Amino acid sequence: MSEARVLVLDAQPPPRLDRLAGRARVLHSDESSLHGLLPEADVLLVWDFTSDAVRAAWPGPGPRPRWVHTASAGVDRLLFPELLESDAVVTNARGVFDRPIAEYVAGLVLAMAKDFRRSLEFQRAHRWQHRETDKVFGSRAVVVGSGPIGRRIGTTLGALGVTVRLVGRTARAADPDFGRVHAGEELPALLPDADWVVCAAPLTPRTTGMFDAAAFALMKPTARFINVGRGAHVVQDDLVAALRAGRIAGAALDVFATEPLPATSPLWDLPDLIISPHMCGDTHGWRDDLADQFLDNFDRWVAGEPLANVVDKHLGYVPAEG
Amino acid sequence: MSEARVLVLDAQPPPRLDRLAGRARVLHSDESSLHGLLPEADVLLVWDFTSDAVRAAWPGPGPRPRWVHTASAGVDRLLFPELLESDAVVTNARGVFDRPIAEYVAGLVLAMAKDFRRSLEFQRAHRWQHRETDKVFGSRAVVVGSGPIGRRIGTTLGALGVTVRLVGRTARAADPDFGRVHAGEELPALLPDADWVVCAAPLTPRTTGMFDAAAFALMKPTARFINVGRGAHVVQDDLVAALRAGRIAGAALDVFATEPLPATSPLWDLPDLIISPHMCGDTHGWRDDLADQFLDNFDRWVAGEPLANVVDKHLGYVPAEG
Repeated sequence: MSEARVLVLDAQPPPRLDRLAGRARVLHSDESSLHGLLPEADVLLVWDFTSDAVRAAWPGPGPRPRWVHTASAGVDRLLFPELLESDAVVTNARGVFDRPIAEYVAGLVLAMAKDFRRSLEFQRAHRWQHRETDKVFGSRAVVVGSGPIGRRIGTTLGALGVTVRLVGRTARAADPDFGRVHAGEELPALLPDADWVVCAAPLTPRTTGMFDAAAFALMKPTARFINVGRGAHVVQDDLVAALRAGRIAGAALDVFATEPLPATSPLWDLPDLIISPHMCGDTHGWRDDLADQFLDNFDRWVAGEPLANVVDKHLGYVPAEG
Repeated sequence: MSEARVLVLDAQPPPRLDRLAGRARVLHSDESSLHGLLPEADVLLVWDFTSDAVRAAWPGPGPRPRWVHTASAGVDRLLFPELLESDAVVTNARGVFDRPIAEYVAGLVLAMAKDFRRSLEFQRAHRWQHRETDKVFGSRAVVVGSGPIGRRIGTTLGALGVTVRLVGRTARAADPDFGRVHAGEELPALLPDADWVVCAAPLTPRTTGMFDAAAFALMKPTARFINVGRGAHVVQDDLVAALRAGRIAGAALDVFATEPLPATSPLWDLPDLIISPHMCGDTHGWRDDLADQFLDNFDRWVAGEPLANVVDKHLGYVPAEG
C-alpha cells in the first residue's frame, strides 16, 4: 500500500504523529491553505476543531478526503450539505472527554450549591460572612444529551445522591444506568422539577436554540442551568433575561455562540453566571489522548478494519450501539 | 416525673423547643449568666457551640447538669478536666453534618482541580484564558478522621474515582468501605502519595497541631490540603510557609485557630488558599436538624432509655460501634 496522505488542519501541530512514520505523508494546513491542499488528501485530521474553515474549503466534485476525523466530541462544524452528501466517513473524539466533563459539571453543581463564588468574593474583601448553603444530595437534575458525556454526567451526579433524568433524542426503556431515557419531547414536562438542568447534547437542527425563554420559564426560580454542549444550544439573550429577572437562580456556561467571548459581552458581569473559556473537557494530557485516539483509528484504516466512532452524519453524532 | 430543667446556652434560640412543652422548663442563658444558672439545670444544651463559656462557668462540687448536649460534631470545647472527671454525660451532633461536609469537601476538590478560582478571576477581568486542568478520577486522597464525617468524605471522593486512604486513631482491618483504616502513626508513610489531604479529625491532644511543617514537607508539591476539622489541627504559620514556598500546591480552610478570622490575617490574601467561614456543614435546615436531634435524645432521656451519640470523654468523640 502506498503512503496515505494525511492533511492536518492545525494551529499547533498534534503530538505523537511519529506513529505515522513510513505509513503516511503528513501535510499541515492552516485555514488559508486548506482549500488548495484538500483535493490531495486521503485523510483530513481536523485538529483545530474550533475552526469553521472546512466548510468553505471542501472541494467540489473530484478528489477529496475519504475520511475526516475531528478532535472534538461535537461534529456540528462538519455537518454542511456537501460533506453530508459525500461518501466521506466522519469520526470524532467520542470517549476522551466523558469523565473530565462529568467532573467539571459535578464541580459546578457543588460550587453553585455551596456558593463558592461569593465565598471567594468575601475572601477578597477579608470578610467573614457565614451563610447557609444547599444540599446536593436529594436534589434533582435533568441532563440533556444521552451520549457518553451526558451519561457520565448523569452517573457522576447520581453518585452524589442526585436523582437524574436523562434526555435523548428518542425515549428508551430499560436503560441499565437510568432506568429510562426520556425523549426530547418530554423535556418541558421534566424541567419544572429540576434543581439542575445540564445541556450536554450534540448541536443539531433539533437542539439549536432549545434553551430559550420558554424553557427558562418552565424552570424553578431556584433552578440552575449548566451548558457544556455548544453555545448555540442557548438563546443567549433569553438566558440573560431569565437571570436578570430572577426566573432562574444561576447558570454556568463553558461554551458560547461566539468564542472567544468578546470582552464587551454583558455576560461577563452577570452576578449569577459563571463563565469559563470552553475548557471543561481539557485536562492535562488531553492532546495526547486525542492524538492517540486518531492514531488508533488510523491503524484500523490502514488495516482495512472498521473505524471506531463513526458519526451518523444525519443524526449528527455517533449512535449508541445495540 | 417533675419537669426537667433545660438550660440553653444560645445567642439566638433554637427552633422547635415547643416539643418540650409540659416536660421541661426551658431557661436561656448567655455567656455571662451561665455560671449562675448552671447549678439549677438538669440538662445543658450548648446551642451556641462556638462559645468557650462552659469551661469557665462549670460549677464546682454540688448541683450541676447531668447531661450536656452540644449542637456540634466536635466536642473539644467541652473536654476540660472538671467535666471530664464529672459523671455528666456528653452527647453531640454526630450524623447531622456528614453529607453536607462530604459534599463541601468534594466541591473543594473539584474546584481546585478545575481551577475555578482563577476562572472567576479571569471572568472579573473579562478575559478568555483557556487552561488545562486536573483529572480527579484516578487521583489519591488521604482522609484523616474515621468518624462518620471522614468516612462520608471518603466514600464521596471514592465515588468520583479517587483512591482513598482513611486514617483513624487506631488501625482496623476488613473495613467494609475502605478495606483498611490506617493508624495515625502511618500518616507520614501515606502523605507522600496523596494528591489530596483532608483533615476531618476530632480535635484531641493527639491531633492538635498534627499538620505542621514536617507533615507539609512530606506532601507532594502538587498536593492540596483541606481542613474541615478544627483550626488547631493546623500549625497555621507552617501552612502559610508551605504555601508561600510552593511546597504544596494549594489549600482550603473552613476552620481557624481564631474565629472569625481577623480581617488583618495574612491568610486572606494567599493566592493558593481558599477561605470559607466555618460553614462547610451548614446547609439550609441545619438548625432544625440539630434541634430535632437534641429533642429526640431528650425523649430518650425522659423515657429512661440510653442516649444516642454519647461521647467518650477521654477519646474526645463518639466511638464507633462494634
